Order: sequence, then structure tokens, then C-alpha cells
Amino acid sequence: MGLVLADSLLKQELERVQADVDGAFDGLLPTPEDSRARLVEAMRYAVIGGGKRVRPFLLITTAGMYGVSRTAAVRAGCAIEAIHAYSLVHDDLPCMDNDDVRHGKPTVHKAYDVATAVLAGDALHALAFEILGDPVTSNDPFTRAELVHALAAASGHNGMAGGQMMDMLAEGADFDLRTVTRLQQLKTGALLSAAVEMGAILGKVPEEGRGYLRAYARDIGLAFQIADDLLDHEGDEAKAGKTLRKDEGQGKATFVSLMGAEQARHQAKALSEQAVGHLASHGQEADLLRELARFVVERDR
Amino acid sequence: MGLVLADSLLKQELERVQADVDGAFDGLLPTPEDSRARLVEAMRYAVIGGGKRVRPFLLITTAGMYGVSRTAAVRAGCAIEAIHAYSLVHDDLPCMDNDDVRHGKPTVHKAYDVATAVLAGDALHALAFEILGDPVTSNDPFTRAELVHALAAASGHNGMAGGQMMDMLAEGADFDLRTVTRLQQLKTGALLSAAVEMGAILGKVPEEGRGYLRAYARDIGLAFQIADDLLDHEGDEAKAGKTLRKDEGQGKATFVSLMGAEQARHQAKALSEQAVGHLASHGQEADLLRELARFVVERDR
Repeated sequence: MGLVLADSLLKQELERVQADVDGAFDGLLPTPEDSRARLVEAMRYAVIGGGKRVRPFLLITTAGMYGVSRTAAVRAGCAIEAIHAYSLVHDDLPCMDNDDVRHGKPTVHKAYDVATAVLAGDALHALAFEILGDPVTSNDPFTRAELVHALAAASGHNGMAGGQMMDMLAEGADFDLRTVTRLQQLKTGALLSAAVEMGAILGKVPEEGRGYLRAYARDIGLAFQIADDLLDHEGDEAKAGKTLRKDEGQGKATFVSLMGAEQARHQAKALSEQAVGHLASHGQEADLLRELARFVVERDR
Repeated sequence: MGLVLADSLLKQELERVQADVDGAFDGLLPTPEDSRARLVEAMRYAVIGGGKRVRPFLLITTAGMYGVSRTAAVRAGCAIEAIHAYSLVHDDLPCMDNDDVRHGKPTVHKAYDVATAVLAGDALHALAFEILGDPVTSNDPFTRAELVHALAAASGHNGMAGGQMMDMLAEGADFDLRTVTRLQQLKTGALLSAAVEMGAILGKVPEEGRGYLRAYARDIGLAFQIADDLLDHEGDEAKAGKTLRKDEGQGKATFVSLMGAEQARHQAKALSEQAVGHLASHGQEADLLRELARFVVERDR
């Protein structure tokens, strides 16, 4: 009963974050009167109305634990979601993963064209930092500069983009568990960690008080990716809203190919529990983060 | 004689900026030990050793007028050059302008591959904001946040990326002089203006004192673009280090096609003189900016 109730609270809160983020993007991206309209429409197509919003949820929920205003947290949530969305638009390109479907609808280069998709990704990338640099997000310049630094470091060559490069070279490569773990910590873990970190920055949590939040983020990041590999291996394409089992076809090493499905499931669950353990110093204000840690390994899409 | 001497000072200073920016990028981009090496090598290929460095020059020279430390100005100069470089890498892609040669060498997607070029552009984009968010660039967080906001706004859908979208749709379109001016103010003018603005931000020039610097930047931005159209029309491909006369072949409206070469040359010169006029309140500390205004319309590449 407790779990059902908590699950439903988590679901409600994820939906609230989705609505808030969509509403904020709608305000941030009015369609211009000139021929830039096509670009802004493609940006809106990529960023409004799709995805679970796990990164903004993590950011907004962490910020909420420290009394940050919802408006500020939602804006910073939009910044991290804009980075996530641009990375999906570019990853889906014909020259990269060549995917036709994302969030159950045609990818941006299918709905528009490849050039518009490249440009829409670039413009979403810039939008993220325009939001964070804007005094409307936080009137404290130190907070703004810290948010920018955390997000840029997590998304560049030492973070997400670096992980994507490793992933591109992984096809047929003889990767061991250690290398796949490192790759995934960069490709998806860095941005999930940045979400929690940015919540803590907005909450003015001092550097030395962020250790357990970082440990939580690291564990759910890895659990999230192992669960993703399991869903890719066993999941339903219609529910996932994207093409599955491409890694297997390309001979890429994944957590499932390296450990087997049973061991991977066990490992994801252990990491999820470990993540919850890092929140022991918190009371019920951290319940949503605890529920999310369980959700990331139990979700079916 | 005076002009020759000043020209040679400008040339020296442009070369000094090139050397400083290259040196800073070399330090910012050590090649990693893992498979991200390919990504970082492509970033270095795109950003080290090519280009006139007009944007860092504008930023560093403006900052120098207000006593900013050279190190800080060079770092911010690297940030704006990283944005410029990423935009060239993406503009050169087969799906965009499909160019094989840039700065006299193969474009990034030719030297590496298309996927690596997309990713190297993305990683350079992130690097720009990682540099600006870093306290090493300025220990004043307000300055860092302002730099981020100026650069992100100038490069996103309301700046460079928006202009590039308009340019993509310009093929065969019935554009008049007003629309081409607007397109170019976004596509190249916004970033050139941001260079001067960022120098003023580093120099803590108050908002209300930046008007004439903005007017200078606007004028040289437009003069620069008209000169570019003239070079594209009349220039030498070997000197330019890129393919010329593509716009003409595609029936795109340019300043030259709309005004004719003679009128365009006249207009570029008038804008250059007007730009110099905006610096009247300055003494010889603005001589380099004056020389640059002349250089942008007299250059042969």
C-alpha cells in the first residue's frame, strides 16, 4: 500500500514536472515572424511534450529539498532538458545512430530535414546556457556561473560528448565491464549527476555537503543505464517509443551482454538500494528521490 | 607611412592573438588516454592554427582598453572562437553547405568523418561555456554569468543559428536588401558584436557606457560581411582557403547581387569610416580597433 501510494506520488510529481517544463519551454520559445520560424518549430518539436523528464525531475526535486523557488528550479530544469534534447536530436542523425523514431514520433531529421535537425540541436544547446546566464533564473551571479560550469563540464568532451564518442567506437570493440561502466558514466551518468548537482547549487548546499548527493546520483545513473540495457534487450518497442536491440545487432558490449540479464537485474537493484542508502541523513523530504531510485530500475520504458 | 606602420602593428597584434589563442587551446585540450582521443583530436584540428581570429582579437583588444588581464581576455577569446569554430564545422557538413576545404585544409568531416564532426562541434560548443563558467577566467561571478549570457544569446536561435536558418532558406528566395541585412546581422554580426560586448563586460564597462562600442561592432560586422560577399564574388580561392562563389551558383541574394560590386565596395568603406567615428571619445588606446575597421574592408582573404 505504502509503495503504491508513493509510486503514485512519484507519478504525479513526474507529470507536474513535465507540465511545468513544457509550459516554461512554451514561454521561452515563441515562434518568430520571419524565416527563423522553421528553426524554432523544430526546437519546440524536439523539446516539448516528449520524454520522462528524469533530469529536470532530479534537479527540481533536489532543489526543492533546500527550499529553492519552483520557478528558478524549473528554468534550470529546462536548461538541462535542452541539453538532453539536443543530444538526442544529434544522436538520432543518419550519420550517428540513424534512428527514425523517438518518443513514439518521427525524429527531428525525419519530421524536418537533416540540416534543420543539426541546427535545432545547436540552438537548443545555446538556449540551455542562455537560460542559465539570465538573471531571471537566479539573481545570484555566483549561482548562475556555477550552474553553467556544472552543465558545460557534464556535456562536453569530458562528459556526455566524450561518452558518445566512446560509444561510436564501441562497435565490435573488445570492451570489458570496466570500460563500459566508464563509457556509460560519461554518456548518461554525467548529465544525471549534473541534474542533482545543479539542484544542490541552486540550494546553495556547500561543496563539502554534496558528497552523498553525488554518490546517490552516481548510483542511480548506473542503475538507470543497466535498466536501459535490460529494456533494450527485453523491452517492447511500442512502449519505448524507439528502435530497440540495435546494440546487440552491432555487437556492442552492454551491461547485459557482459553480465547476462539476471546478474544485470541484480546489479541494478543493488545500485538502486545503495542510492537510497546515501539519503539516510534525510527525512521524508527525500522520499521522492528514494522513489525515483526504485522507479529507474522498475520502469517498463 | 602612418598607415603602413599601423597596418604592421595590427598584423603583429593579430599574430599575437593567434599565438595566444592557439597556446590556450593547446592547454585546454590535452588528448585523453582513452577512445575520446579521436574526439579531442578533431576538436584541436578544428580550433588550433586556422582562421584570422577576428573575434578573439576584437574581444581581447576591447578588454585591453579597460585594463583587463591578458590571460582572462585570452580565455574569453578562446570561448568565442570555440563557438565560431563549432559553427564552421557544422556549416561545412554535407547536409549544410557541404564544403570540403576550410582554412586551406580538409574540413573536419573530410579529415575525420561526419559523425565525429557533429560531435566535435558539439563538444567545442560546450567547451566555450565551460571556459566562461570557470573561475579561472574571472574571479567575479557576475562577469562570468554576463559573459555566458552574451555569448549564448548571440549564438542561439535569436543570433547566429537563427541567421544560419534564414540563410539555408535563402536559396532562390526573393530577398531584398533589408532581409539580407537582417540575415547577416544575425548570422555573422551577432557574434562579432558579442566579441566587443564581452570585452566590455570583462572591463566592467557599465551597461550605459557600451552604446558606442555596440555601434562600432554593428558597423564593422556589416562592413565585414559586405567585404566577404565581395571576396566571394571576386576573390582567389587559394588565398581564401575555401570554395568561393557558391551563393551565386545557388541564386542566393547577397549584398553584391543586390547592390552591384561598386556600390557594395562604397557601402563597406562608408560603414568602416562610420565605425571609426564611433570611437571618437577614445585616444590612441583605440587605434587597433580603428585599424581593424579599415582592415576588414581592405583584406584579401
